[in-house]
Parts: sequence; structure tokens; C-alpha cells
Amino acid sequence: MLERLKEQVYQANMELPKRGLVTFTWGNVSGFDRETGYFVIKPSGVEYEKLTPEDMVVMNLEGEKIEGKCKPSSDTATHIELYRAWPKLGGIVHTHSSYATSWAQSGRDIPCYGTTHADYIYGPVPCARGLTREEIEDAYEKNTGRVIVETFRQRGLNPLHIPCILCTKHGSFAWGKDAMEAVHNAVVLEECAKMAGWTELLKEGVEPANKTIMDKHFFRKHGENAYYGQ
Amino acid sequence: MLERLKEQVYQANMELPKRGLVTFTWGNVSGFDRETGYFVIKPSGVEYEKLTPEDMVVMNLEGEKIEGKCKPSSDTATHIELYRAWPKLGGIVHTHSSYATSWAQSGRDIPCYGTTHADYIYGPVPCARGLTREEIEDAYEKNTGRVIVETFRQRGLNPLHIPCILCTKHGSFAWGKDAMEAVHNAVVLEECAKMAGWTELLKEGVEPANKTIMDKHFFRKHGENAYYGQ
Amino acid sequence: MLERLKEQVYQANMELPKRGLVTFTWGNVSGFDRETGYFVIKPSGVEYEKLTPEDMVVMNLEGEKIEGKCKPSSDTATHIELYRAWPKLGGIVHTHSSYATSWAQSGRDIPCYGTTHADYIYGPVPCARGLTREEIEDAYEKNTGRVIVETFRQRGLNPLHIPCILCTKHGSFAWGKDAMEAVHNAVVLEECAKMAGWTELLKEGVEPANKTIMDKHFFRKHGENAYYGQ
Amino acid sequence: MLERLKEQVYQANMELPKRGLVTFTWGNVSGFDRETGYFVIKPSGVEYEKLTPEDMVVMNLEGEKIEGKCKPSSDTATHIELYRAWPKLGGIVHTHSSYATSWAQSGRDIPCYGTTHADYIYGPVPCARGLTREEIEDAYEKNTGRVIVETFRQRGLNPLHIPCILCTKHGSFAWGKDAMEAVHNAVVLEECAKMAGWTELLKEGVEPANKTIMDKHFFRKHGENAYYGQ
Repeated sequence: MLERLKEQVYQANMELPKRGLVTFTWGNVSGFDRETGYFVIKPSGVEYEKLTPEDMVVMNLEGEKIEGKCKPSSDTATHIELYRAWPKLGGIVHTHSSYATSWAQSGRDIPCYGTTHADYIYGPVPCARGLTREEIEDAYEKNTGRVIVETFRQRGLNPLHIPCILCTKHGSFAWGKDAMEAVHNAVVLEECAKMAGWTELLKEGVEPANKTIMDKHFFRKHGENAYYGQ
Repeated sequence: MLERLKEQVYQANMELPKRGLVTFTWGNVSGFDRETGYFVIKPSGVEYEKLTPEDMVVMNLEGEKIEGKCKPSSDTATHIELYRAWPKLGGIVHTHSSYATSWAQSGRDIPCYGTTHADYIYGPVPCARGLTREEIEDAYEKNTGRVIVETFRQRGLNPLHIPCILCTKHGSFAWGKDAMEAVHNAVVLEECAKMAGWTELLKEGVEPANKTIMDKHFFRKHGENAYYGQ
Repeated sequence: MLERLKEQVYQANMELPKRGLVTFTWGNVSGFDRETGYFVIKPSGVEYEKLTPEDMVVMNLEGEKIEGKCKPSSDTATHIELYRAWPKLGGIVHTHSSYATSWAQSGRDIPCYGTTHADYIYGPVPCARGLTREEIEDAYEKNTGRVIVETFRQRGLNPLHIPCILCTKHGSFAWGKDAMEAVHNAVVLEECAKMAGWTELLKEGVEPANKTIMDKHFFRKHGENAYYGQ
Repeated sequence: MLERLKEQVYQANMELPKRGLVTFTWGNVSGFDRETGYFVIKPSGVEYEKLTPEDMVVMNLEGEKIEGKCKPSSDTATHIELYRAWPKLGGIVHTHSSYATSWAQSGRDIPCYGTTHADYIYGPVPCARGLTREEIEDAYEKNTGRVIVETFRQRGLNPLHIPCILCTKHGSFAWGKDAMEAVHNAVVLEECAKMAGWTELLKEGVEPANKTIMDKHFFRKHGENAYYGQ
């Protein structure tokens, strides 16, 4: 079942090592099927070199396995929280990519320092708060998702305009209209994280980009007045 | 028409991912044909893996499409401003390469810290001022070009001696006698941006190279007394 | 003899240049055979491109060569000290990988700044003290091993929970249940060293991850309640 | 003539882009033939992809071309000064590799922060003073060589123990018993330059390695009591 989605999710997973976003098995991508309400996700701890489309696991949003011989990613419960909160998402990715994770480890939002960032992410990349002891010890992965959703709600952010987040002391999640767009946004995040770090090294107290330039770049590529691309 | 120029511009565009200067579709190269007064540019938002010489778009300096099935790069109006202001340019490239963009995001000129820089760029790489709200909201890409030209005029710089610029909070443009030389200068810019950042980390308050060594290196490679190369 | 182990140790050695952990011959991997009490190690100063499984040297824990036409790695005596002190080790690797070595040169432990680190290393990566003049001049390689073991004993650390160490002004050692797992841990160490450096640059005085999140991640992957992987 | 040396020097030149030490044509290697007193050097400004062993230029130590259809490297006069001052050199390489050049641009010696450095370079990598206006304007390349030799004489350094140098605001030279060993030392220099930069970022005021550990590592690999390798 969902053979085409499995192939897409497989391809999106394979993009992670190709783009230098993961070491070993440190990452996972899922894709959602609106018709059945199921999603397809990478199996837990399987090396990318050995992965096949058939290894992908089909799950429902109650966390039950619908099909598949493997155990799903240990982060499956986080994916479920995001799909439930934000029905427009079609794909989600989790990585420990070097620069984004360094920002997550520092516990800081990534300021929007330029148009590369504003082309895809409309404002700072938020860094979600750390989990409490209770949230960690019981249902850790589910609570990771809850804290992500809480961050967006408390700050009044639109997940379609800010397609990624950092998790304090952990790593990052990114998403999009499908699995491949989620990975695309994870690549953008990593590159912007690298450049933001260097921007601060080059000028102490540097200011973020202003709203006018952010609006110009984000809406040049997104929304009804977009004029970028074919 | 202009089949040979299309092939050259195509090759110069393909050099961008090969040299690590672009991620996804973040960059574009154009080449100018002096005889017809037309230029050839990359189509907007097309992936490099799918690009062919036939996809290149032929434009005139009034911004009208002369030939091509695709929409030209969204930065076309910037290229036009530069070709109009500086008739000796034969190629222009725009990228968001990591280190040059980090400098642009910091809003600083890149000082000439050594001979690698002076071999190609005769003085600091200027960082053009940010655009005003009016300049951003109306004819953004054209105004980006105007502010680049304004920077060179106000500072009395020669675009043949300083073949590149940073745009505050955005990225970089580079140029040359043809499309491939423009890309060559973009590679130089990226490498010099990386080394200038490290130079400052290694020694606070480090001084730029003096004029004598800059003259020696620049004119060893450029102008009538050049003696580098075959 | 020990043909299968030689092949494993050969493969683990070849993983070093593939993963970007070594330049030239700067690294070595060994694997231990519990049945015979022998171990197999890379020959000294042989280039990776020319290495074959037959070049591997079989040694005993008294430092005597059991089989092999080549001289064993110059660091053999360090490996012996670790195998003797910690009988559960099945593989050991030594590298001068860039970021881990930079930390070793700074003489600092690598704090556990996040879950990437806690997934494999349960606490800071210790940096062993420098050797005394006497320890350097007489039996240097053996004393390097002794100081590593001393560090774990004095700090009450479990080498199965902290599978790597830095040696002041030198490089790193990592280990595991076999040669390939040792290399796996060396890759983790290098990546965590890079991210820890950037984490500090991004936020002065940043705090390490707390014990609750460290426990969660380490024991999610290790020990009897592990639920990561298939 | 000197076909075997040409092939060696060609191979050593091709190692530069392979090891990531040069961009475009920014680097050159030469090799010396003791019997004839001639040396073979890369032609000026020829791209590595187009280089062949036949392009190598044969020169004597008076700077006269003995054989070859191309102009020799513009840095030929620097190579000559070094071969004349230090008859034991068999190969010399010049590069603008990123980290070594950043140190050169900062005008600082690279301290010996660890054993990776001490394995090949017995003490800090010296940074030669900048040239005077007169030295730059007249016989620049020859004076570059003279200042390198001056630096070693004034500091009482042995070029066989310190096989490389930085030139203020410029780049680096390295050497060895033949062309390939010179390139080997340039790779070591670049890696040590990178790690030394990070070492300082990780710990302000960090101390260099002490003499005992430097002696141990350098003489473990070099001189009559060496015991590293086969």
C-alpha cells in the first residue's frame, strides 16, 4: 500500500546523507497521505546504505503500525504531534545537522540576517524551550512535538511561513507540503545556521534584516503574488 | 540564435554547483553579446540538474525577452543595470555563497588582507548600502543594480579593477569579460571572504595589505605590464 | 590466522579516510580476539591506499608479534594498556581528527552540550592530563595508555559509557565492542567536538545538557531498556 | 630530458587540487635534480586539468630556461633562492591554502600546539616579515626567497626540521627531500593551521606543547633514532 508515497519518502530520506545533513542513522523523514490519513516513515536505526522503499513503515495518527516489517523511527510520536496540530503538512524531517544543532545546543533562535533566510523562513527560526523532567521521563518524543506546537502557538507563528524549529540541546525539525520539500527546508536551515554564525563572528551586535526586505523576499517566492520560478 | 553564447552561459551556470557556490537554484549567470546588444541568462528557479543550454533566455537591455520558452531569472533587472552602466562587462553572476553572504549579512566591506585577494580585486570588496523602503517595494531588482552602480560611482571605484560587490543582508554579484570569468571572480570572492574571516579571528585589529604589495600582485596579473601566465 | 578479524580490522581502518578522520597515515585501528587473547592492528606508517588485510599484524597483550610481515603501529603499546585494563573492549582506534584534536590541544574536556553527544557518550569527553617528562622519555606509548586508564579510575568513569578520550596536546582514542564500533564512536566524537566548538562561539557561558535529558538519550540507545533501532 | 623528474613534479602538482590545497592555478611545485643541478617546475598560470608532464619547465639555478615550451611559474625566482641557500632540498611547493594563508595574512607564527604539528615541524611555523617597498618593486619574487632564508638564519632555524614558512600577507612555502614530500608537508601545514586556529578559539591564552613532547614526536619520526614506519 501507498507504494508511491513510500518511494517518495525513501528518496527524501536518501537525500539526507547526499546533502550532508546526517551522519550514520541520525535523521528521519516522513510523508503524509491525506486520503487515508496514514503516514509513511523511516524505520528506526537502519543505515541509509541498506535502506529500501519497502523498509518504510506505514502508521496512523494514533501511533499504530498499519504496515511494515520494521519498527518505525523512535521519533515517530513527534511526527504525529505535528501532523495532528498542523493538517496542512505533507512531510516532516528531523536531523542533527551540524550548524543547526549547534544553534539548538546554544538554546538561541536563529535571527533572520538576510535574504537567503527570508526566501524560505519568514522571521527567526524559533528555539523551543527544553522539556521539564516530567516531560522527558514520560512520553519524551510525544512531548517534544507538543513543545514545538506550543512554541508556535505562544509566539503566534504560522508553520507554513516558518517551516522549521530548533529543539534546545537536541536538533532540528523541518516540514513542508511533502517529504522532499521538508528536506529542502532542512537544507536551507542548515545553510542559514552556518551563515548566521559567521555573520555574528564578523560583526558583534549585528542587526537582523528589516521587515521590508523580509517581506519582499518571502512573498517574491511564496503566496499569490509570487513571481519567482517558472 | 546566439547558440555559442547560450552554451557558454550554460557552462558557467553549471560551474556554480561544481565549485560549491550555490545550493539548489540560488544563483544565476548571464553573458552579454556586444554585436546584437542582447544578453543570455539562466531561467528563474530551474534546478541545475535539469538545466540545458536550450533553457537559456535571450533578453535585450530594455528587459524584453527576445527568445526562450522560460521566464528569465528574477534578478534579470539587476544584470541589466550593470550591463547598461558598465559596457565593458561580458558576464555577470549572482550567488549566495556562504562566506561572501556572511560578510554581506554583517554589512561590512571585505578588507584586502593579502595577495590572494590583491591578485584579482584591487582594494576592499565594497558592501553596498541597504535599499530604502521605497527602493525595495518598487522595482526591487532594478534598484539593487542601481545601488551597486551608485556605490562604485560614489567611491570612485573601477569595476574592471574591483570585479565584485556585496549587497547588504543579501548576497554577492561578480562580473568579468565573459560569463566564465565572472564565475571565476565569484570563486575568488568566496575564498577571500573565508580567509578574511579567519584572519580576523586569528588577530584582532589586523591591518590590511599595504598599497605596494597590492599594486605588485594586481598588476603582475592585470594590465599592460602583466607577466603572469603564458 | 584470525583471517576474519584481520578483514574486520582492515575494513575499520579503511573507514578512517572514508569518514574524513585521518590525513595520510595518522590513525590506527585494532580489534581484539577474546578466544586467543590476541589482537590485530594496522602496521606502522603504511598508506591507506596500499593497505591490504594481509598487512594486519597479530600481537599478544605482552606486546609480542604473533604473526605478520610488518611492524605494528607505533601506538601498539597504548592499545595494549587499554585492552588489559578493560577486558570488555573489542576494538580501539586512534586518530588526529581535526576538531577532536583541537579540543585535545586546548587541554579541555568536551562538555555534553546536547543529545547527539548523549546518544553515545554519557557525560563530558575527558581530556587526560599531559605526561610528565619521565613518562614521555621512557615508554611513552605505554604511559599514554596508563594515563588514559588513570583518568577513568580517578574520575570514576565507566569506559563502556564514555567510549572515548582526548589526550592533551595530542589526539583522541575511541573504543567499542569491535573495531567498527570503535570507529563509529570516533566519528561521533569528531562531530560532537565540531558542534561543541560552535555552540560556545554562539553563546558564551552556555550550559551543558542536564542529567535528565542525558539519561533519556543514552539509555534510549544503550542498556536493557533501550528502544532505539530494530 | 629529466623525464622521470618531470613525471614526479607533475604528479606532485596534481596532488595540490586533489588535497584541496589550491583553487584554480594558485600553487606550484618544483623538484631538483642533484646530478645536473637543474630543477623542474610547473608552467605559469596553466590550469591543472590541462597540465601534462611535458608542460613542465626545466630551469637552472641562474634562472635560465634549459628546456620547455612554456614560461615557468612566476614564483620561479623564489624557488631558486631556496635551492641555492639550502642544497639539501629536493622539492619546493607554494600554495595559498585557506588556513595557512589566513595565518600568513594575520602576520603570526603558528605555535606548535600538539603532536600532529610536532610529528613533522619542530617548533612554530615562522611567519617571515613583509617586504619593504624596494624589495617589492624590484625583484619581488627573488626577494621573497631572500626574506625566507633571512628568517631561518636570524632565528637559527634548520630548514630540515622546519619544512615550511608563512609569508606575511601572502601564502606559504613548504619543502622536502623531493617534490612529493614537499606537498606532504604543505598538507600537514594546512591541517595544523586549521587546528591551531580552533585551539585558540576553544581556549584563550592556550600554551604551546612543551619541548619534551615535541622532541619525542619529532624524533620518533625523524633522525637516526626514528622508530615510526616500516
